[in-house]
Parts: sequence; C-alpha cells; structure tokens
Amino acid sequence: MKVETPSMTTTTVLPNWLKRCAENYPTRCALTYGSVHWSFAELNAQVERLARQLAGAGVQEGSRVACMAMNGPALVICVYALTRLKAILVPLNIRLSVQELCWQLQDVRADLLLYEPRFATTVATIAEMVPGLKQHALLTGSEDERYAVWLEAATEQDVPLSEEISLNATQAIMYTSGTTGHPKGVLITYAMQWWNAVGSALNMGLHARDCWLACMPLFHIGGLSILMRSVIYGIRIYVMEKFDAQAVNRAICEDGVTIISVVAVMLQRMLNALDEGQRYPETFRCALLGGGPAPLPLLQACAARNVPVVQTYGLTEACSQAATLAPEDALRKLGSAGKPLLPVQLRILNDGVEAKPGEPGTIYLKGPTITPGYDHRPDATSEAFFDGWFSTGDIGYVDAEGYLYVLDRRTDLIVSGGENVYPAEVEAALLSHPAVAEVGVCGREHVQWGQVPVACVCLHPGAQLSESELQRYAEQRLARYKVPKAIYFVSQLPRTASGKLVRRDLKLLLPEA
Amino acid sequence: MKVETPSMTTTTVLPNWLKRCAENYPTRCALTYGSVHWSFAELNAQVERLARQLAGAGVQEGSRVACMAMNGPALVICVYALTRLKAILVPLNIRLSVQELCWQLQDVRADLLLYEPRFATTVATIAEMVPGLKQHALLTGSEDERYAVWLEAATEQDVPLSEEISLNATQAIMYTSGTTGHPKGVLITYAMQWWNAVGSALNMGLHARDCWLACMPLFHIGGLSILMRSVIYGIRIYVMEKFDAQAVNRAICEDGVTIISVVAVMLQRMLNALDEGQRYPETFRCALLGGGPAPLPLLQACAARNVPVVQTYGLTEACSQAATLAPEDALRKLGSAGKPLLPVQLRILNDGVEAKPGEPGTIYLKGPTITPGYDHRPDATSEAFFDGWFSTGDIGYVDAEGYLYVLDRRTDLIVSGGENVYPAEVEAALLSHPAVAEVGVCGREHVQWGQVPVACVCLHPGAQLSESELQRYAEQRLARYKVPKAIYFVSQLPRTASGKLVRRDLKLLLPEA
Repeated sequence: MKVETPSMTTTTVLPNWLKRCAENYPTRCALTYGSVHWSFAELNAQVERLARQLAGAGVQEGSRVACMAMNGPALVICVYALTRLKAILVPLNIRLSVQELCWQLQDVRADLLLYEPRFATTVATIAEMVPGLKQHALLTGSEDERYAVWLEAATEQDVPLSEEISLNATQAIMYTSGTTGHPKGVLITYAMQWWNAVGSALNMGLHARDCWLACMPLFHIGGLSILMRSVIYGIRIYVMEKFDAQAVNRAICEDGVTIISVVAVMLQRMLNALDEGQRYPETFRCALLGGGPAPLPLLQACAARNVPVVQTYGLTEACSQAATLAPEDALRKLGSAGKPLLPVQLRILNDGVEAKPGEPGTIYLKGPTITPGYDHRPDATSEAFFDGWFSTGDIGYVDAEGYLYVLDRRTDLIVSGGENVYPAEVEAALLSHPAVAEVGVCGREHVQWGQVPVACVCLHPGAQLSESELQRYAEQRLARYKVPKAIYFVSQLPRTASGKLVRRDLKLLLPEA
Repeated sequence: MKVETPSMTTTTVLPNWLKRCAENYPTRCALTYGSVHWSFAELNAQVERLARQLAGAGVQEGSRVACMAMNGPALVICVYALTRLKAILVPLNIRLSVQELCWQLQDVRADLLLYEPRFATTVATIAEMVPGLKQHALLTGSEDERYAVWLEAATEQDVPLSEEISLNATQAIMYTSGTTGHPKGVLITYAMQWWNAVGSALNMGLHARDCWLACMPLFHIGGLSILMRSVIYGIRIYVMEKFDAQAVNRAICEDGVTIISVVAVMLQRMLNALDEGQRYPETFRCALLGGGPAPLPLLQACAARNVPVVQTYGLTEACSQAATLAPEDALRKLGSAGKPLLPVQLRILNDGVEAKPGEPGTIYLKGPTITPGYDHRPDATSEAFFDGWFSTGDIGYVDAEGYLYVLDRRTDLIVSGGENVYPAEVEAALLSHPAVAEVGVCGREHVQWGQVPVACVCLHPGAQLSESELQRYAEQRLARYKVPKAIYFVSQLPRTASGKLVRRDLKLLLPEA
C-alpha cells in the first residue's frame, strides 16, 4: 500500500473486540447470569457457534436481523454473533404493541426475526401481518447446560467469521421517535460504540476488576452500550433479566459489581431495600443515572449510603451518555447533567446564534459518538444536522462554569421509568379513533415513574367515547407504558395563532394531580 | 450537513485535549516539575500565552518548528502551544552532533528553531551551517516565577487559537534511521497519539489519581507520548530533567507517582538505590519497560521489591508501545514482549507467507497507532507497507499462546541505554574518513547500557589510523552514544557472495569481551 500524505482519511479497522479478549484474557470472567459465569473464551466459542448457525439460516454481511428477547445469554450471544457476520442488529423493544413491532420490522426491511420462545405468540401474530419475514427461535439451555444458546433447528455453516471491526460499519439500528409520530431508525455505528466506551472510560476511569451490571433493557442504547464496553474494556458484565432491587444490592455487596446503569426509580428502590444503616462497599464506584436529573432527597440519601451517583444526559443518537455530572458535583450543581464526555462537543444555539452562559437554547452535539443519521431518511437526517452539529431538539443552558442544565427534553419528550414516550406518537394513535377530532399529550409528574403520559381530547361533534374505552383502544396500538394514564375530554386545545399545538400549555387544562 | 450513508468516512475531530482538561478539571494538578505544581488551568494559560508569542514570531498552521530543549516546562508548554497553532513539532535529540542536527533541520525544511539558552553555542554553529533558519530562545523563569515560559523578545499576536484537534493532522515529525544511513522523518499524527493513549489505558487501566513520571527524553516518542496521554486522560505528569534513581524513588514513594516509563538500566539503578528490604508502595502500579526484554535477575529483583513490570515492544512508527507483557506473565513468558495493544494487529510473515507459531519472520503491524508514512519519502513509505501492514523490519515469532518474542531489532539495531543506534548511520560516518576503506558496526553486550556500538574497520592500503583518532573524528559527526566504544582494525569484513555485509558475523571478529 502506498501512503503519501498524512492528511489521508482512512477507515479505522480494529481487531474484533470479543475475539481479542478471548485471545488476551481467555480465562477472565466475561459474563455472569444467574449462578453461571462464562469466561471470555467460553463466550467467544458460543458466539462463534451461533454465528455459524445464523450463517446457516442465511444471515450474511448487511443482513438486518431483528431480535426479540429479554436480557439474558440469548440476546448477548446474538449481539456479538451478528458482528462476526457483519450483519446489522435491530433490537426490538419487547414492550411495544404488535402494531408497533410490525411497523418497525417493515420500515427497517428486516431479513430475519429472532425470538425467544416466550414471545412465540406475539411472533405468530407478527408473521401474519408481515408476510415473507423469516423467523427463527433462539433457544437457551437450562442452568445445568450453562445457559448455552442455539438456533432452533440450526445447521452450522462453516463460513469465515470476520476477525475485524470496521468502525464505519453499522452495528445496529435502533428506533426512536420524534415530532413526526412515527419512529425513525437511528444508525448506530461501531465508531459510536467505540468512542462512547472510550469517552466513558476517560471520564470514569477503568479498573482491572471492573464489573458492569446491566439491569436496564439491552434493547435500549443504555443497555446495548454496556455489552460493547465489556468487550472493549475486557471486563465482566453482570446481566439481569430485569431489575430487582434486592438482587442488584446483592450483586454489588457480595458479587463484585462496581458500576451500574439505572434510572432514578431503580436507585430509590435499591436504597429502600437496604437494611437500616447499611452502606454500599467501596468497590461500588459508579451508579450511572440516566433519564433526567435526580431529586435532592434521592441524592442526599445516596450520599448517606455511599452511592457515587454519576448523572448523565444521553440519547440514542449519541450512543447513550453525552454529558455526565461527577459525584463530587452532585449537590453543588443540583439539576445539572454535567459536562460533555471528551470526544463530545456541545453548544447551545438560539436561531443559529450561540447562547450566552445561562441563556436557554437548543442543545447541539458534535463528535464521533454522534450518529451519521437515520436509516433511509435523508430528509430527517439533513434536518437534524446543522454544519456538522446534531440538533438534539432538547432545550437547555450551560452555566458560567460550563455545566449543562437540560430544561425540556425534545418535542416535550416524556420519560416514564426510563422509557421514552413521544407525545406525537401517542397522539397519532389516539387520533386514529373515529370519534377523536383533536388530541394533545403531555407528561404529568409521577412519584414512582418520574412522569406518565396524559391526554387531552376533543371529540367530533356528537361523538361519544369514555376514558377507559379510548385507553383500551390505545392499548392495542401502543406499548402499555405509552398509554395515557388519564384522558381529559376538553372543548379546545391550546394552539398558536398559526394553529400549532402548544404542548406545554396542555398542563393548564389538567386538574391538580 | 447532509449525511446519507453510514459507510461514509469522516475525519474525526475532537476538542483540544488540554483545553478540555482546563475546562473540566481546572484546579486538578497537571504538571509537577521540581517543587512546582501547575493546575490544568495554569498550564493552559501558559500554553495560550506562548502560542500567541509563537504566532507573533510567525508560526502558523503547518509551520515546522524544531525544538531543542531538555525535559522541562519549556518543552512541555511548547508541545501543547504548537497544537493550538496547528503547527508541527520537530523535537530534536539534544545528544546529536551539530552535523546531524543540521542535516535534520534541512531535511525537514524547518521554519523555526526554538532552543533553550543552554544550547546557544550549538545553535550559533547551526545558524552558520543552515543559513536562513530563524531561531528564537525559549526562556524559563526561576522556581520563584513558577518556571513560567516565554519566547525571548516576544510580541504576542492575538490570533484565534485552535480549539479542536483533527486526528488526521500531523502532530510531530520524529527522525529515525534505517538501513539507508540517513534518518527519515516519521509522521506522527494526533490519531496515532490518541489511539496509543487509548490502547494503553485499555491495557493498563486508568485510575483517577494516576500520575505518570517522565524521566525519559520527551524528544523521543516514549516521552512525547506521555505528554499526550496526560491531557487525554486528564492526569498529572511528573517531569524530570533527567533520570536520577533517588529522585525517581522519592517521587514514587512520597509524591504519588503511579506509572513510570523506563529502560532496564534505569530500573536496575532504582532498585540499587532502595534501602535494604525497602519495597515500593501499592500506589506504584506500573513500570513500563522499553528497549528490549529484561534479564531474569532484574525481573526477580523487581518482584521482590513490588515493582509491577510491564515490558513493551515499541517503535517510533507505532507511536511507542505496540505490544506489552502483563506483570503476571513476566516470569512465565521470560523474554517475551507480550501481546499487541487492542487497536494493534500483529503478524509474522516470511516472504509474504504467514509464519506458524514459533516460526520466526518479519514483524508486521497494522492499526490506527501506525504512522501513515515518512515525511516526503514516498518510496520509503511505499517500501515499508505491504497491503496495509507496516513492516517493522524486526524479526520475531509468536508462540502458541499468542505471545510475541522479538529476536532481532531491525537492521541490526543497537539499543544503548534506551537510545537507538543504527549501524548503517555509524558506518557512513566512519567511512567518510579518508583512511577508511570498509567498516562494519555491531552491538556488544554491556552490563550498564545493555548494548554499545563497536566497529570493525579495514584501512586503505598504506593508510594509518589509531582507534582514538577515529573515535575523535566520529565524535564531531555523531552523537556521543553512537560513537563506537571500541574499534578493531581487520583485514577483511564478513560478506555474502554478492558482497553484502553480514553484520551479525562481525561479532566473530571481536575478541571476547
């Protein structure tokens, strides 16, 4: 190869992360699930076997493989196996309605749907609605079988497995909504994962005995990025099927977990489950807290129990964390999301003009952790970028010391127990009911979930509809956490002179909670 | 910005590393020199001031600025200031002869030579030999002035300082020799520095209280890369003008140094300087050992004194470390340089064919820590790369477990006290003496320096020359460490049938040491 100029731009290629771990630390523990511990060598062997089975099922470079699974070995192995085939992972949110799932599978042009047997009924319905979509069950052995993972009725194909990772390649496509009502597929490249992992390590340090607990869904970016960090850092992940406060406390106090990713409601439950006066051990060095700033009483309780809380501002388009608040700043900078990770640049713009310290505006991000765009949505991609800067749509300001404060999540995003609810998406679902003329959805504070969606609805003249009837209608179309917890029938919605819905004024229509 | 495809290749741009540290950790200690500690904010302020003074002296984007300085604030500030101006650093080895320095300054087409006043005499000679080269003295204040650094007779120019680092840009050009006799300028990009720093952190971990001691010359890649790591990690560097075993021991035992970069002779002196039975504290977590594998007695002594030795195989073209041996493998894999850093791929080729485990061949490297090539040497660059893989010229093998063993440094490289001595370069200098007809240079084991160069010389018929006379002649042309410590006059040199010098057979001509 002839290389003449230093300014040349090349695609960075790295050795496959998991394979390298298996070579360099074959006996080191890679994965804990239940009572079973897998070494990197064992994990890699499982991944290579499943990759060959997936190849036998027709998966190849560029294949789009949707996966419907809860946290566990099946999903973990599947994620790494797709990398070896250069196929693209489309992780499905298991809480979505069948309609939502079908929409995503068609939008992403999925080649194959992998699923755990527990979702067989849902998948059978999907099969009727998305003709031509191939499906394969992903089976997990018993605890005695060390939770080995394989493809149902698989035949292994002896294909060459990729030993490198090209950072510009797409690792996953993850759906997220916006103002348009329908979700868009965010392209997640290996570069984004790599740079996010590195930015996170530079921020929080990296210890040889680190162990990261994943109790958030792995089908969200906050969970998926833990899987990537594990093999980039060469550290153990502790995977839980779902959040259980006592099990998480045990993992921290007795099983060497040093870092966890949680939302506020989880952290509160963990503290509640502690014994009186019990504190966490010094080995617990980071609780990465997403989904909005923590309230003061929670932070004070964390300080009392020795929980080092690192609050974060993250989004799918930034491959999870973009800014973090160091534990020592938690009380001094209450409500702040901290400072951007090293690879990330952040600025606040008001109509294209740089905001002064303290002045709110739209949050823009730039850097190698930011998505190159939305899958087959050139217009949405082009709208989202301004001179190389990604517009988050979120509103916030930066104080004189450079700390970010997020005021409003984009498009009045509602964050309910760590799940994103986009008002426009819920409105579109309710509006499809023949009796509904207009609808506005907003969030209401909720002591357990942080926020829940509620709706204001104008009916067509003469139409009749009850709250519970409309909720049942919504349940068929939306994930349960998106269904408005209360629906108020009103005669008029707040609108601008030009007729645009003013969502933040919806709250004025609601009765006191 | 319109971004349509995920496979698009972009130049990665990061915020300026030091400036980001000054924003995120303004009061954190950045630099210790003598009794003075500088915070990141103070360091950054000094750097910005010097950058404006350099701009006043005509330095701009792409300027090639040579710097002749010992380890200390002046060189540190200068390195970071050039980044803010997008200028290219050409660090000069202060041990080179005037002839060698002039050759490099002309070869690199230096725009400016910065120097510490202690080198004024040398620089005056250089000025006569390289007409048109601008020079400026780089002054350092007293300890009472906190070693502030400024340019002599400077006028600050209020230019915009770069706030970003483009990874594809060239940070430095560092000279290294090869088979040709004359050194070549290795292009060191910010990408190489970044990836090396990240690879090193992923390998050795990264702790919030890390402090890296630089007692190796900062004008070598092993030293310069510490300066980059410091601002990428946001950790303190402890800079020493030169190696002093007792001072290094004090820094480790009393002043919080956690990582040092050394060669074997330094490590041995450190151990010798310890009190009987004294061990290093647990905070000392890594002695990064370059310049060839450590002998068994040294490793055993290190184990007894609690020194975690990380042996490395590195080269300028790989931005220092390329492979490292973990401390726990030191005795089990005696003589090995370990495994490649995560971003680096390594293979052994024999005439283009992959070598089997245990079979020696040429060591090839690939990855983002590898240089894009040699400055204005398209032929040398093209010769050095094979299908994207860089040929180190070094000979080695990889065992069945993937551990690298380096058998011969390239072109019979002699490593003397951590400095590289290229036989071809020394031979060319001796050959220029009118009495010398043929010459061969090789290394001889030396208890203190590892190796020293020695020469075998054939004189022209009838010519007369003494050993000391030829050594004095060489001293005018070569750095002192390159001058052969012994010269043997012989009637014939070992050559192949085609007349090529067989350097490794030279040793047969030498008397027993």
